[in-house]
Amino acid sequence: MRPTGKLLAEDARRHHRALMLQRLFSEGPVSRADLARATGLTRVTVSDLVGGLIDDGLIVELGSPAETRVGKPPTLVGIAADARHIVALDLSPDDRMIGTVQDLLGAVKARVELPREGRSGAQAVRLAVSLAAELLRATDRTVLGIGVGSPGIVDGRGVVLDAPNLSWRDVDLAGTLHREFGVPVHVANDANTAVLGEHTFGEAGDGDFLLLRIATGVGAGLVVGGVLVQGHGSAAGEIGHVIVDPGGKPCACGRVGCLETVLAVPRLRERDPAALAQVGEVLGEALAPVIGLLNLHQLVLAGPRDLLDGALRDAVDRTVRERTMAVTTEDFVVRTSPLGDDVVLAGAAVLVLSGELGVS
Amino acid sequence: MRPTGKLLAEDARRHHRALMLQRLFSEGPVSRADLARATGLTRVTVSDLVGGLIDDGLIVELGSPAETRVGKPPTLVGIAADARHIVALDLSPDDRMIGTVQDLLGAVKARVELPREGRSGAQAVRLAVSLAAELLRATDRTVLGIGVGSPGIVDGRGVVLDAPNLSWRDVDLAGTLHREFGVPVHVANDANTAVLGEHTFGEAGDGDFLLLRIATGVGAGLVVGGVLVQGHGSAAGEIGHVIVDPGGKPCACGRVGCLETVLAVPRLRERDPAALAQVGEVLGEALAPVIGLLNLHQLVLAGPRDLLDGALRDAVDRTVRERTMAVTTEDFVVRTSPLGDDVVLAGAAVLVLSGELGVS
Repeated sequence: MRPTGKLLAEDARRHHRALMLQRLFSEGPVSRADLARATGLTRVTVSDLVGGLIDDGLIVELGSPAETRVGKPPTLVGIAADARHIVALDLSPDDRMIGTVQDLLGAVKARVELPREGRSGAQAVRLAVSLAAELLRATDRTVLGIGVGSPGIVDGRGVVLDAPNLSWRDVDLAGTLHREFGVPVHVANDANTAVLGEHTFGEAGDGDFLLLRIATGVGAGLVVGGVLVQGHGSAAGEIGHVIVDPGGKPCACGRVGCLETVLAVPRLRERDPAALAQVGEVLGEALAPVIGLLNLHQLVLAGPRDLLDGALRDAVDRTVRERTMAVTTEDFVVRTSPLGDDVVLAGAAVLVLSGELGVS
Repeated sequence: MRPTGKLLAEDARRHHRALMLQRLFSEGPVSRADLARATGLTRVTVSDLVGGLIDDGLIVELGSPAETRVGKPPTLVGIAADARHIVALDLSPDDRMIGTVQDLLGAVKARVELPREGRSGAQAVRLAVSLAAELLRATDRTVLGIGVGSPGIVDGRGVVLDAPNLSWRDVDLAGTLHREFGVPVHVANDANTAVLGEHTFGEAGDGDFLLLRIATGVGAGLVVGGVLVQGHGSAAGEIGHVIVDPGGKPCACGRVGCLETVLAVPRLRERDPAALAQVGEVLGEALAPVIGLLNLHQLVLAGPRDLLDGALRDAVDRTVRERTMAVTTEDFVVRTSPLGDDVVLAGAAVLVLSGELGVS
C-alpha cells in the first residue's frame, strides 16, 4: 500500500458523500438503490454512507412512496432541511446590511436588516458582526456556517482586498467572523455570490452565463464550463469601473463615465423608460465584444426587476444583436433573475453548502 | 469485477501513456525512474509503458548522461522526434493556403504554399486537398495525422459550419481529407488553433489569455483555467464582426464598422504609425470590458509583428489601462506572439498531437 492510501480513502469517502448529497439536493428524496445507480457506488458503500449521514442528522428516512405498495417498498431518504441552519449576509446594498437564516434547502427562516447610516471601515465590520450575531440568536439549530456576499475584491481566504464603498482594504472578514462566532465562514464578492445563487436556485441551467449584479454599483460574475471565472488576480467581474462613456458624468472613483455612472440603482431610479433604454444601449455596446468572444448563452440582470425588465432589458438585447454576428447571438438570451434582490443571499447560502458539504 | 473493468483498464493505460508522453514532450529526455516519480506510477508500470512506446517507435533509448558516470548510469528515454510526421494546414490567409510537414517536436521539415487565386466553395476544398497531397508526398515517414486551422466556425467533428471568406457552409473538411488520405484529421477554427500553438510553442505559460489572430480578418481564442472556451454554439472567438465603429467603413458582411474594417492585415498595411495607434485605441475600447470582466493576464496579438508591435500594441495597452480599474490591469500584459504568422501552423500540429497522443 502506498503511503497516501489512507488519505486517498478519506478523500474518496468525502467525495462520495458529497456526490450523494448533491444528488439529494438536486433530485429530492430517493431510495438507496437510486443513489447507488446515480452515483455508480456499490449498494454496500451507499448504505454505509447513508448511515453516516443519518447519524449526522443531515438526512432522514422518509418512509415509502404510495405508488410502490406492490412488492417490498423501498425506503426513501432525503435532506433533513431543518437539521442545520445557514446564516447568509449581503453587505452590498448602499444603505443597509441584510441577513437571513436559511435551512439547508434555502427556505428563509428569519430576516434582519440593519441600516448602514454611513458606516465604513472598522465600524462597518462591527455592523456586519452585529448582524451575524442577531441572526445566530434567531435560530436554535446548529449553524453549518456563515456565508457572506461582500462588495469589492475578495481573495480565496475571505479577505476583502479592496471595497471602496465600505472603505475596506485588506479586511479579514472571514477571520473576524470566525473568531467571533466559532463557525465556518465563507466570503466572496457579491456578484460572484449572486452567480452561485442564480446557478443553484435560479434559472441558469447548465450553460455558460454572465450575471450582472446591479445594486448601488454594478459587478459581474461569469460562469464558463460550469466554473466561476476567478481571474488572474481574483478580480474577475470588476466591470463597474470600466469606462463606457468618456464624455459622461464623473464617477466616485475619480474618473469619468464608468459603467456605474449610468448602471446603478440610484441612477436608474431617476430615469424614465426612454432613458432606461439609453442605458441598455450603452450596456449592450460594452458587452457586445464579450458576448461575441465567449459566444455566451445567457446574460442575467440581477437586481430590482421593475427597473431592469422592460425598456432596459430590451435595449441590451437589441444592441448586442445589432453589434454581433447572427451566428454568435441567435440563441442569446437576456433575462432578469427570478431571485431579484435576494440573489446574493441565496448565493451566500450556497457558499456554505458548497464549502461545508461539497454541494452546489 | 464490474462489466466496465476492461474498458477502464484500457482507458487508464491510454491515460498513463499520455501522461508519460506529456512529460517527455515538456521536459525532454528523462530516465524511467524520473518518469515514475513524475507520474506517480509504479516502476513496473512505467517500464511496461516505455516498452510499448519503444515498440511503437514513438520514443527511443538515448544512452546515459555524461555527468552520472559514477555508479550504474540510468538510461534516458526521449521522444523520437522523427518517428512520425504531422501535416499542418493553415487555410486562413486571404491569398493562399499554407502547409508544413512537422516532426513530433514541431520542427518544420517541408513547407508548401499554394496561391488561392480567388477560389472558394468546392474549388477551395480541392485546393486544400491538393496542398495536403503535396505535403504527404514530401515525407517518407508514417503520418500521425493532418491538422487544419480553418477560418470560420468549426464544430467538434471538423465540419466548417460557416466560413464566409471561402464561401463554405457545412463543409465536412475533416471527413473529406480523411476519406482522401486515410489518416486521422483534426480541424479547428484558425484563431482557436493559434491559441493552441501559442500555448504549446509560444510564451503564454499557464495563465488565462486572449489571443487575437490578425490576418485577412480577425478572430480570437480565449483560454480560461487552462481550457479553450468553446461557447454555447461552438462560436466563441467570433469577434471580427463585432461593431466597434458605427460611423465607420462598410464591411464585407453588409454592416458598418465591424472590427475587421479596421483590424485586418490589408487595412493595417495602408496605415502610418499614428493611424496604427488609432486602431489600437479602438481595439482597447472594445476589449476593456472583456479584460475587466475576466481579469485577464495576457492579451496576445498574433500576426505580422512589424504591424502589431509598436504603436498599435502600445495604444491597446494604454487604452485598456485607462478604461479599467488599476486592480484589474496592474499585471496585465499585451504582447505579440513570437510565432508570428506561423502560429496557426504550430497549433495545427498541436491539434494532431493532442488528438492522437493525448499531449498538448
